[in-house]
Amino acid sequence: MVTLEDAHATLERHWRVQSRKVEVSLDEAAGLALAEDVVSKLDVPPFDRAVFDGYAVHAADTFGAGEESPVELVRVGSVRAGQWPKFRVGRRQCTEIATGAPIPRGANAVVMLEHAITSAKVVQVFRAVAPAENIAERGSEIKRGTRVLRAGEVITPQVLGTLAAIGRKRVKGYAPPKVAVISSGAELVGAGSPLKRGKIYDVNGPAICQAVELCGGEPCYLGIARDEPRSIATLVKRGLAAHDVVVLSGGSSAGVGDIAPVVIDRMGKPGVLVHGLAMKPGKPAFVAVVRGKPVFGLPGYPVSALMVFDQLVAPYLRRLSGLPQAERAKVRVKLMAKILSTRGRRELVPVRLVRKGREGYAEPLFKGSGAITALALADGYIDVPLEREIVEENSIVEVILFGGGAVG
Amino acid sequence: MVTLEDAHATLERHWRVQSRKVEVSLDEAAGLALAEDVVSKLDVPPFDRAVFDGYAVHAADTFGAGEESPVELVRVGSVRAGQWPKFRVGRRQCTEIATGAPIPRGANAVVMLEHAITSAKVVQVFRAVAPAENIAERGSEIKRGTRVLRAGEVITPQVLGTLAAIGRKRVKGYAPPKVAVISSGAELVGAGSPLKRGKIYDVNGPAICQAVELCGGEPCYLGIARDEPRSIATLVKRGLAAHDVVVLSGGSSAGVGDIAPVVIDRMGKPGVLVHGLAMKPGKPAFVAVVRGKPVFGLPGYPVSALMVFDQLVAPYLRRLSGLPQAERAKVRVKLMAKILSTRGRRELVPVRLVRKGREGYAEPLFKGSGAITALALADGYIDVPLEREIVEENSIVEVILFGGGAVG
Repeated sequence: MVTLEDAHATLERHWRVQSRKVEVSLDEAAGLALAEDVVSKLDVPPFDRAVFDGYAVHAADTFGAGEESPVELVRVGSVRAGQWPKFRVGRRQCTEIATGAPIPRGANAVVMLEHAITSAKVVQVFRAVAPAENIAERGSEIKRGTRVLRAGEVITPQVLGTLAAIGRKRVKGYAPPKVAVISSGAELVGAGSPLKRGKIYDVNGPAICQAVELCGGEPCYLGIARDEPRSIATLVKRGLAAHDVVVLSGGSSAGVGDIAPVVIDRMGKPGVLVHGLAMKPGKPAFVAVVRGKPVFGLPGYPVSALMVFDQLVAPYLRRLSGLPQAERAKVRVKLMAKILSTRGRRELVPVRLVRKGREGYAEPLFKGSGAITALALADGYIDVPLEREIVEENSIVEVILFGGGAVG
Repeated sequence: MVTLEDAHATLERHWRVQSRKVEVSLDEAAGLALAEDVVSKLDVPPFDRAVFDGYAVHAADTFGAGEESPVELVRVGSVRAGQWPKFRVGRRQCTEIATGAPIPRGANAVVMLEHAITSAKVVQVFRAVAPAENIAERGSEIKRGTRVLRAGEVITPQVLGTLAAIGRKRVKGYAPPKVAVISSGAELVGAGSPLKRGKIYDVNGPAICQAVELCGGEPCYLGIARDEPRSIATLVKRGLAAHDVVVLSGGSSAGVGDIAPVVIDRMGKPGVLVHGLAMKPGKPAFVAVVRGKPVFGLPGYPVSALMVFDQLVAPYLRRLSGLPQAERAKVRVKLMAKILSTRGRRELVPVRLVRKGREGYAEPLFKGSGAITALALADGYIDVPLEREIVEENSIVEVILFGGGAVG
């Protein structure tokens, strides 16, 4: 039995977390982490643009203009956004220009619409402008050759917009790790199949698949292994062949529970590194490395499987995805009933959040609540450290929320 | 000019938020909100099951057993998980049974493996068990006919596991609203296309599409409308024909910015309900209802478009998706430079989060930072209320984080 921290350390001595990179088009990029520093090949804006609707002028021609002493300029042509002006604005001339339109040659400032009065051929300007005034100059936002985004940034709407702005069509991101999900148990039947006598539906397969997605992974449910060596070996081999990580749950009863680690240990070096965590739940959990890939074994009890997944597997899926280990979403509430824990053993206690009057409470879901009831009710769990024996009723506890809920 | 709250109220007088329902298989259901109360058609567990590995017995046969006075039972057969026992356990008999295996007829309790010693034909039992001890009885977790999940619950791994447990193959959820996203501006070119002179890349299209996804919507980018009536009308009509909501950004410069609301107002009653929010940014924003569907107009400046989307559009997409209006992810940090705001106007100020020594700060991104720079840097925004004229440097402010970041 080793602590969770030791299990992580042991795994990392035998397996180097290496992310795969993938090049995708912008419309597939949302939510990935960037796997490249992004350098702009473009000046942004790519030309001098008007910042307001108004008149493009020689700034010098407006010097001295005021409310009482307008300057008169001859109006030539007009430039709308998206057009490229082929004419030149001569001295004492001006041209009508729209926000975002390119500044024609000869002009070097824009007089805002509201500071001018126009007639057929002549524009009266009531306010002087300095050179470059009301112009966004070429490259003023991003100079060609500048790094605009760093590898590791997560592609949010803002990052996607920035990539679009510099004309990127495709971008390199970290590939979502492919995760093979296997349930083990001779009594299990896949969701929705007819239920023969003596069988129950597999709960962990679908639940762990969604949990994988919420850490940026790409789950693939390989189905159900019987609790016997050949069936487990076949599915784990299939998992190792085409995926980055294998997650197996169940197969953990005292009679047959040791089959999976034994079978997996035989599949290659270094094999099983950890079997049994000094944590409740965690006794049947194991960690192996086979063919250079990690294989995680989770308890069969659904709430336990999800809590151990969260602590043991999720951090690696986030790292493989290139996603930051975001602070988990937590809430601080009062404890509804005291928790007794074994000294010297860390304990994860599933709870549901309830409201009593104005206050939020965490109600521990003890073993009495069955596997499915606890699953349907659990909102998260409390992490009771090694040295605590009792957490008192009404004390303030921190609940780690289920549901991938990471803040930020 | 109306307040954001009035804009919402006006919209809701003319448009009733009605979500569509959709029936999906469990593997497509993750993240949707349930559109039905889920009643179990199954007892869970569906039969009396052993909770531990051990021996199924008549409880009465073990009465009086103790460490010093074992009871001897005749061993008959064995039941593994997933098997259906065809035999009956007679008085003074027992059968080997695995965790999760069905209790054979005749037996009514399970003696744990560690409380018995077995030889070829005989099992010595060292501890008495009560009737039903170590058995999970049929229906003890969920009785057939019980409601296990309520409409409105979001499908998390736990909910998905619960649906699987009761044998559901398909489930009714709220359909992600289809959102047509249109960018408007004669100078705009789609991401990755060649950039002709006078043109710039469309930033809002991709950014708003991802923002739509993060509120549970299904975005569809319809492309770029020129700033002229026919082009806008064509795309908005296409949007209304096949989507639940239309979101248009840009087309907001003083010269041409009024085209979109005018065009859309002509497309049907009640037409444009609000044009201009008493909020900065928000002057060019509009809200219309045409053919029973809402059309939202957002500013062209990318950071403004995302902030107004967040305040004006996102709440409806969440409601259409059946998702709760989750508390937005916020952080409380010190303000790095004072903000001057216009009294009587609410102001959303984009900021980036920076760390100075041990403290987190919000650095306001003022207009000086260009559209794209601000976009790449912004982590969120501060909501400065109507009555505030100044927010002092080093005061504590609440930053609403971008990125759909909802807690829980």
